[in-house]
Amino acid sequence: MAIADPMDRSSSNAGQYVELGDEGALRLDSGTELPRFGVAYQTYGTLNADKSNAVLVCHALTGDQHAANTHPITGKLGWWEVMIGPGRPLDTDRYFIISSNVLGGCMGSTGPKEINPETGEPWALSFPVITIGDMVRAQARLLDHLGIDQLFCVIGGSMGGMQALQWASAYPERVFASVPIASAARHSAQNIAFGEVGRQAIMADRNWHGGEYHAHATTPHAGLAVARMAAHITYLSEAALHRKFGRKLQDRDSITFGFDADFQVESYLRHQGSTFVDRFDANSYLFITRAMDYFDMAVEHDGSLPAAFHKTPVRFCVISFTSDWLFPTADSREVVKALNAEAANVSFVEVETDKGHDAFLLDEPEFHKTLVGFLNGAADKRGLKKP
Amino acid sequence: MAIADPMDRSSSNAGQYVELGDEGALRLDSGTELPRFGVAYQTYGTLNADKSNAVLVCHALTGDQHAANTHPITGKLGWWEVMIGPGRPLDTDRYFIISSNVLGGCMGSTGPKEINPETGEPWALSFPVITIGDMVRAQARLLDHLGIDQLFCVIGGSMGGMQALQWASAYPERVFASVPIASAARHSAQNIAFGEVGRQAIMADRNWHGGEYHAHATTPHAGLAVARMAAHITYLSEAALHRKFGRKLQDRDSITFGFDADFQVESYLRHQGSTFVDRFDANSYLFITRAMDYFDMAVEHDGSLPAAFHKTPVRFCVISFTSDWLFPTADSREVVKALNAEAANVSFVEVETDKGHDAFLLDEPEFHKTLVGFLNGAADKRGLKKP
Repeated sequence: MAIADPMDRSSSNAGQYVELGDEGALRLDSGTELPRFGVAYQTYGTLNADKSNAVLVCHALTGDQHAANTHPITGKLGWWEVMIGPGRPLDTDRYFIISSNVLGGCMGSTGPKEINPETGEPWALSFPVITIGDMVRAQARLLDHLGIDQLFCVIGGSMGGMQALQWASAYPERVFASVPIASAARHSAQNIAFGEVGRQAIMADRNWHGGEYHAHATTPHAGLAVARMAAHITYLSEAALHRKFGRKLQDRDSITFGFDADFQVESYLRHQGSTFVDRFDANSYLFITRAMDYFDMAVEHDGSLPAAFHKTPVRFCVISFTSDWLFPTADSREVVKALNAEAANVSFVEVETDKGHDAFLLDEPEFHKTLVGFLNGAADKRGLKKP
Repeated sequence: MAIADPMDRSSSNAGQYVELGDEGALRLDSGTELPRFGVAYQTYGTLNADKSNAVLVCHALTGDQHAANTHPITGKLGWWEVMIGPGRPLDTDRYFIISSNVLGGCMGSTGPKEINPETGEPWALSFPVITIGDMVRAQARLLDHLGIDQLFCVIGGSMGGMQALQWASAYPERVFASVPIASAARHSAQNIAFGEVGRQAIMADRNWHGGEYHAHATTPHAGLAVARMAAHITYLSEAALHRKFGRKLQDRDSITFGFDADFQVESYLRHQGSTFVDRFDANSYLFITRAMDYFDMAVEHDGSLPAAFHKTPVRFCVISFTSDWLFPTADSREVVKALNAEAANVSFVEVETDKGHDAFLLDEPEFHKTLVGFLNGAADKRGLKKP
């Protein structure tokens, strides 16, 4: 198996892709099956001889596999460059990092944007409604393909943290360590509500055409931008918005008594909305938010969250941020309580920051220090060679 | 002057209306003028002989003059029935309550929905962008018309609280007491951001037609519903959403793996959106949210909030709610700090509740008790006859 040079940005931009299904269809939680499915992914670092140093990085709602390489559409740095690389917390001199686009995504993995082989048309809304469990099942098949029996670590923030938890629950023997960051074992009522606003914004766009916009050679840009804008507010804290923007005006000395973006925060949000639509598929947004809404680990274990981690051998590092109101610390505490009830090996850190939910993407010293400490300890225990 | 019987719901449903401008045009903060303008209002209770018992109730973003009578469109109880009536905190046996639709509103007062007399067409986006100060100026003209020199009290929650503060600042001699509830002296960056999301949702609706939907015999229902849904989440606390809905399903035993409203919270939000569009004008939503964004009392006083209340003779009762994250207690504290700097007569109560911003509309015992205590004391001081 050829592993791409992690620092060769030109080759990793193209991305790696594998079509799976030869070993059987992918069975989904909805009861339907995908006979064949593709997974687009990136790797960074080198897989060691006994394949024990693999780290699976799981992305959030609007992330993708381009965690630590220049994004092929936006030309921007990867979304977790601060985390992945030589000498960084996810040290590519020590670990082999795998970052795959989730099932249902829009950057190459099978999802509503891709062609349904049975019809020759994009799946659109005929794509099966998927779950976090389905995403993880698809990732497990990628690992099978790569010949990796056990991950050294599965890690992610937000929806990525849901996957990290789901991995530990569904495949405890395939996970040495799990790091759910700014995440939860179930989506809250408020988060379902925000998810629904985003979906309704997309569906309200007349260019959505019941999801069949490809057939009309159009896209529901306006609705998707509104969905992104509403969501983006929830990623920041009130304090961060105040510090960053306050009531500062955008390129003007006084208010204009009109509906232009007088305030910097308006201009910023509009920019967030308009750039997002260039790289994200509206139907993917529907499917992925739905998968998050449906996530509730206790429900699948007769209402008992501890049962989801029964006698788990996995080492956990649960991290939350004080100013995160989308996935507040209380959500992480629930996970920790359940793990404690199973006498699991768990460390829990609530990082003091005013940067809100987005803190998991940022260069937060206390957060990174926590992570490095945990990973070093776990890697030593796993017998991984020091860089 | 004929005062409507407050308990005659059929007559008060029709509403009262006055066209003003004979005493001069209404000068707006934008520099433009409205030569003539109309104010739609309701009254409850009886004005006493020396006209000293008038209470002006100021409504929030989506409120209107129908505070304590059946709403002529929805057929529902008034939005502040729990507050206004015989024996209620705003006791109609003691006070004469005036509730007027704000300038820019859509329930009869001059606003973008009304006809511009110069063109014979609805104002739509040609309506001047108004401010909280303009709303208050129009209300002052209504009081002139009613022959009321001084309000016993001006009271309101959210945007209504902004008006209560603006009244005290702009017309200190015309206000005996002011009660801003769940409000602020300036709109925060986060609130401007949410306002912008609502506006963009409306403008993204193809039926908006640059505000000229009346000319196309349509309305941007879908966009306005999305705006309402997003805003509605901010009116509730996470705890209230969790208590009220949690992850409970709507009329089904299990998730459907689709995009219907599986969860009660989705169904509730959709209902909030779809009923709102029957009673509210999309352009009004744009203008009123803009007025809130522009509200910043300090800016008009060289950056000094205390200067906005210089040597104020007004008695203040500032009220906030612990779980209100839209207008958090910190916003109220800023007002109180400024009033204290002016040695104003101010009492401040933070009411413990998990009901979020919406608490100001609800029957919250501690809130009502606080209010009754303050109003009774002030009324006695003002020499108002006990009921």
